[in-house]
Amino acid sequence: MDIMTYCIAVSLKDGLVLTSDSRTNAGIDNVSIYGKMHAFETAPDRKIVVLSAGNLATTQAVIDQVKRDRKDHVETNLDSVRYLSEAAEYIGKISVEKQRRYLDAGGQNSFNPTATFILAGQIRNDTHAAYLIYPEGNFITTSTQTPYLQIGENKYGKPVLDRFLRIDTPLQEAGRCCLISMDSTMRSNASVGAPVELLIYHTDSFILDEYYCFQEDNEYLIKLRRMWHEKLKEVFIGLPHFSTQEARPLPNS
Amino acid sequence: MDIMTYCIAVSLKDGLVLTSDSRTNAGIDNVSIYGKMHAFETAPDRKIVVLSAGNLATTQAVIDQVKRDRKDHVETNLDSVRYLSEAAEYIGKISVEKQRRYLDAGGQNSFNPTATFILAGQIRNDTHAAYLIYPEGNFITTSTQTPYLQIGENKYGKPVLDRFLRIDTPLQEAGRCCLISMDSTMRSNASVGAPVELLIYHTDSFILDEYYCFQEDNEYLIKLRRMWHEKLKEVFIGLPHFSTQEARPLPNS
Repeated sequence: MDIMTYCIAVSLKDGLVLTSDSRTNAGIDNVSIYGKMHAFETAPDRKIVVLSAGNLATTQAVIDQVKRDRKDHVETNLDSVRYLSEAAEYIGKISVEKQRRYLDAGGQNSFNPTATFILAGQIRNDTHAAYLIYPEGNFITTSTQTPYLQIGENKYGKPVLDRFLRIDTPLQEAGRCCLISMDSTMRSNASVGAPVELLIYHTDSFILDEYYCFQEDNEYLIKLRRMWHEKLKEVFIGLPHFSTQEARPLPNS
Repeated sequence: MDIMTYCIAVSLKDGLVLTSDSRTNAGIDNVSIYGKMHAFETAPDRKIVVLSAGNLATTQAVIDQVKRDRKDHVETNLDSVRYLSEAAEYIGKISVEKQRRYLDAGGQNSFNPTATFILAGQIRNDTHAAYLIYPEGNFITTSTQTPYLQIGENKYGKPVLDRFLRIDTPLQEAGRCCLISMDSTMRSNASVGAPVELLIYHTDSFILDEYYCFQEDNEYLIKLRRMWHEKLKEVFIGLPHFSTQEARPLPNS
């Protein structure tokens, strides 16, 4: 799978923080902007959001199927599932079906229809949660020690999440942490790009009204990344030096 | 290739900074300590250091062959090459031969003999330089804009190199930058570990006497990583908040 996306889901005591970039490419000469954060119309007792990475045709086919299943009152759909993990299983099943269909069609050897999803939300009295759904349809959730999930280009932005996210981190603070993680990733991988979408969900609220879409030239985002960079540089310059007195010759191998 | 190493070579105006971890594994249940920084005995008009990542049998076979070629006065050896790029070509050729020999032997399907090297040093009046040698034997060098090369687990530690390394960064400062980059990598990937080796080479000096080997419990290393973490946390806490007044509802897909 071409790595060309970066999405994070953080599941904390107070609720959820979801972040995604918006760059999609079919080769380096075909770059487009597609949102990867999908909210669904559902019964009022639930809120479900999906983040997607991987083959765009597959992710669009999955999102579309999920919407149609609900409209067609198919037995399993986003309104009929009783648990969030059931919703993850349901989306995993659709994802596998869609990938398989287009693989079976033959075509180029290098064709890769795989897709990875994060599903997050809350159903009724259950606590909010987030699931990472692999291309094989299986899935994992967060833990108290590791309260986040990532899909796509995950490595550049991981150290900052490991450093600052704790299960009791306030949602605003976690949001800033995700924006910093996204910034590190966009600096190091040109195929991850703005606008950056950010959603904050307060547990038991059952509303998705704290959504932000930061464009590339967003004043706040520019200020945040400049300040982070400058302050980091200050810290770096102030680090203790290693003593050259401990130096010795490098022995030959 | 299992990613189980992290090495950096920085080539700056004033000289070279080389850094490597020392963990090697053959499966997660078989972890050992092996230095990955190799200096060679050569004629006094040159200094050549090699960093290695990948299959341990291959890297040891390559290092050994290089030493034997010089002792046996083989036509191409580290003393006969006139340019550092010629040395990179020579090591690339040996690496391909060693990999091929053990691949041809048959064996397990999952067997992966590939290895990647960084070669750095200086020969006579040429400026110092560093080369990354791929398993295929081809190689690349640094540029003014990207004055560093990495092998192994490169992503966690890349953002900090991108932020702080410039072609005119002093060597000590670059050394601290590499130690921070190594720290981020060791935090996120358990298969990269101490001791951390660091070599500073001042251009035209033709001596390798500024070498450090930091053990896991090294006082300076502990102080450096604690200070970096605490100061980063302070900066993070002081970052500007995004205004919730800009929040809006997330539209359905």
